[in-house]
Amino acid sequence: MSSPKKRRPAAPPPQPVDLLVLGGTILTLDPVDTIVPDGAVAIRKGRIAAVGPRRELERRYRPRRRLDARDRLILPGLVNAHTHAAMTLFRGVSDDQELLTWLEKYMFPLEARFVSPAFVRWGTRLACWEMIASGTTTFADGYFFTQEVARVADEAGLRAVPGQGIFDVPTPDAKNSAAGLARCEALLGEWQSHPRITPALCPHSCYTVAPETFPRIRELAARYHARVMIHAAESPGEMKIMKERYGTTPVRHLARLGALGPNLTAAHCVWVDDDEIRLLAEHGVGVAHCAESNMKLASGTAPLAKMLAAGVAVGLGTDGPASNNDLDMFGEMATVAKLHKVASLDPTRAPAAQVLRLATLGAAAALHLEKEIGSLEPGKRADLIVVETSSPNALPLYHPYSYLVYSARADAVETVLVEGKILMERRRLQTLDTEVIRRHAERYRRQIAAALPR
Amino acid sequence: MSSPKKRRPAAPPPQPVDLLVLGGTILTLDPVDTIVPDGAVAIRKGRIAAVGPRRELERRYRPRRRLDARDRLILPGLVNAHTHAAMTLFRGVSDDQELLTWLEKYMFPLEARFVSPAFVRWGTRLACWEMIASGTTTFADGYFFTQEVARVADEAGLRAVPGQGIFDVPTPDAKNSAAGLARCEALLGEWQSHPRITPALCPHSCYTVAPETFPRIRELAARYHARVMIHAAESPGEMKIMKERYGTTPVRHLARLGALGPNLTAAHCVWVDDDEIRLLAEHGVGVAHCAESNMKLASGTAPLAKMLAAGVAVGLGTDGPASNNDLDMFGEMATVAKLHKVASLDPTRAPAAQVLRLATLGAAAALHLEKEIGSLEPGKRADLIVVETSSPNALPLYHPYSYLVYSARADAVETVLVEGKILMERRRLQTLDTEVIRRHAERYRRQIAAALPR
Repeated sequence: MSSPKKRRPAAPPPQPVDLLVLGGTILTLDPVDTIVPDGAVAIRKGRIAAVGPRRELERRYRPRRRLDARDRLILPGLVNAHTHAAMTLFRGVSDDQELLTWLEKYMFPLEARFVSPAFVRWGTRLACWEMIASGTTTFADGYFFTQEVARVADEAGLRAVPGQGIFDVPTPDAKNSAAGLARCEALLGEWQSHPRITPALCPHSCYTVAPETFPRIRELAARYHARVMIHAAESPGEMKIMKERYGTTPVRHLARLGALGPNLTAAHCVWVDDDEIRLLAEHGVGVAHCAESNMKLASGTAPLAKMLAAGVAVGLGTDGPASNNDLDMFGEMATVAKLHKVASLDPTRAPAAQVLRLATLGAAAALHLEKEIGSLEPGKRADLIVVETSSPNALPLYHPYSYLVYSARADAVETVLVEGKILMERRRLQTLDTEVIRRHAERYRRQIAAALPR
Repeated sequence: MSSPKKRRPAAPPPQPVDLLVLGGTILTLDPVDTIVPDGAVAIRKGRIAAVGPRRELERRYRPRRRLDARDRLILPGLVNAHTHAAMTLFRGVSDDQELLTWLEKYMFPLEARFVSPAFVRWGTRLACWEMIASGTTTFADGYFFTQEVARVADEAGLRAVPGQGIFDVPTPDAKNSAAGLARCEALLGEWQSHPRITPALCPHSCYTVAPETFPRIRELAARYHARVMIHAAESPGEMKIMKERYGTTPVRHLARLGALGPNLTAAHCVWVDDDEIRLLAEHGVGVAHCAESNMKLASGTAPLAKMLAAGVAVGLGTDGPASNNDLDMFGEMATVAKLHKVASLDPTRAPAAQVLRLATLGAAAALHLEKEIGSLEPGKRADLIVVETSSPNALPLYHPYSYLVYSARADAVETVLVEGKILMERRRLQTLDTEVIRRHAERYRRQIAAALPR
């Protein structure tokens, strides 16, 4: 009656991988929101080789290095879909002002006087420090001297979409839009094949870039298969200017110019109606929703639920630190989840799972990078963060999404990986000299404070 | 030509004090918003003996102990004007729900099943840990088994206004309002002369406490010179019930009952019109503005600017961690400053200086404690916090109020004093055993998670 002796098929030999992050609860953010308790992520050559139960992956893989994440959450790195990183150096110089006072009395004169390659370098370094420390692994940036942004992000090990600013009026790095476009072309030429740096064009807005400039932007973007980022429909003031100057709205204006397309990311989109939302969805335009900036500058509340219902690829962004005043995507998530509830008087709006998605895969999609990043799935780039769950505001932990969106703070981020490389380990930064950055920030503070209007 | 020899008057001998906190920038929050760079605070017998320049105070005082706060901010401890601390144990059990579903399917059954003296003890201990770690030195609480709240707050060294819940319907600790009042009386009797614990009555609301109960509340409060705290005009649902049942609004209802007075604190006051705001101001009622809770539960946006303009004593509160989901007054400040700007489309609303005041002296005034706490002035209780300014989001630091309200996180709090006693020093808690609290929170998590509806 004994069964015939069976030989178990020999287990395949364990495969070598570079790194195994193991032991925590993995929030994959994959299409079915898979959560793996006591899981592991295997990383090879900067990409995710496998995600699954720890025991299984420990059998299947022989890692060069292990990173213990027991009792912690492992999730995709946060993606900041819109910022102006170097503006850290202007953080808090002028809060609580009328928008025009803020721009004309503070921002424009300060930028004209202080923004230089060195300013952008140190401001972006400070921003990279803040972003890595708070769990952001990708940021989309629009500013000047964008080669510096690309270089600093590269050195810091972050993933970035640096966008070269284009204005018709003189800026700190170009006397007109032609000069801005020339800067774009240099940027695109230098960085187009970098694995982490995705250079882009950043025409500022429909009211600072003339209609005739848009075809040249489109032509250059097409030639390099480049992304384009623009501010659109941010404030009542912008809507008024567009109505007066062009008799239309920013999104319709862009549609007429043939500027809407699947390589475009529009920041803000606060003042868009149903037809414009349909236009954005039809053309595959991504939207960077910057709730805290829109609140602080009193711009308005974007119709998030309508955009999502229409299929628009929406992601979260902090906007620049001069108007937020930080680069904290945890704060942004907490605000977004609550703002849309009170704005609609509907407490079921912007639930935690949706908001976490907007800060990861959603923001990746808004930047047209969703095939590469935004979730923990085999084949994707290994951009992930490890978040601790031991602070009092994490207790008791009934659901990780609720914790991450409603009560976690950015200081819960312990470890940050981009492209499989560790940028911060147990809160120690690996790629930046924070003391040197602090000294330069202090030097700029003294200079800028002395120049502020009394 | 030499001047005659003058004898300098002998300096008075230095006075002994218990503690000198010295070297940081002092934000006094006094009536003229005095800021003292390189300052010091001298503390004797739990009260502030002096605030001023460090060199001067070092000459005038001989401290038993020195606390170095160089490169840091020293400010009044934050005052949380409304919470339900023990509800930490229900943090995040059910977010993103319709209010009635949240209450009837989750909160009420969970409270009926789990709330006991031990639950309140451990939930409040967890809350005290979170509050001390995030810079809150005083909290006003409404819950059940309030003797436990008072005891735990006392042990933790915090200042508290524990309010015993009063309902007509059965609660976890009383079968009706008479039993609730009996509990109030016991609480008032035991704690009335404690220097840090100010016992109070907490009739839940106008729709859960009958009109005939209010005179008994008033009588008991008068007998003990006690404070009364109530929820009022929080949500559209409450307004509807009051309209149907009494043909009026909560504030008018309270006015008719003679329940408005200078010992009352009304939480929320989201739905109050100009006449009601005038009533609140005339009667000296304090208001606890709980912006994040009102947002998350989609209750509405309180008319903060109107209340302040009318002279109402408004302070900030987090509300309970089941509806916020934390006790983080820094998060609350950041939200309040931005919410009122976007709600009014006016970026000059709720400026940083105003919001910091609402979280300190304003909240103290809302609790009728402004003569004792809320600012750093000689004679006041020595409740203060030391906040670091070295994290990247603090750089560059142009103005401390901007930093504290718009970019600081609660983890910047390093040191916390209440009544001159150090409750946390350089992030090490001095009065609570956090590992024991963690174990009990985990035990409750297991029990409560098993009881949650699927």
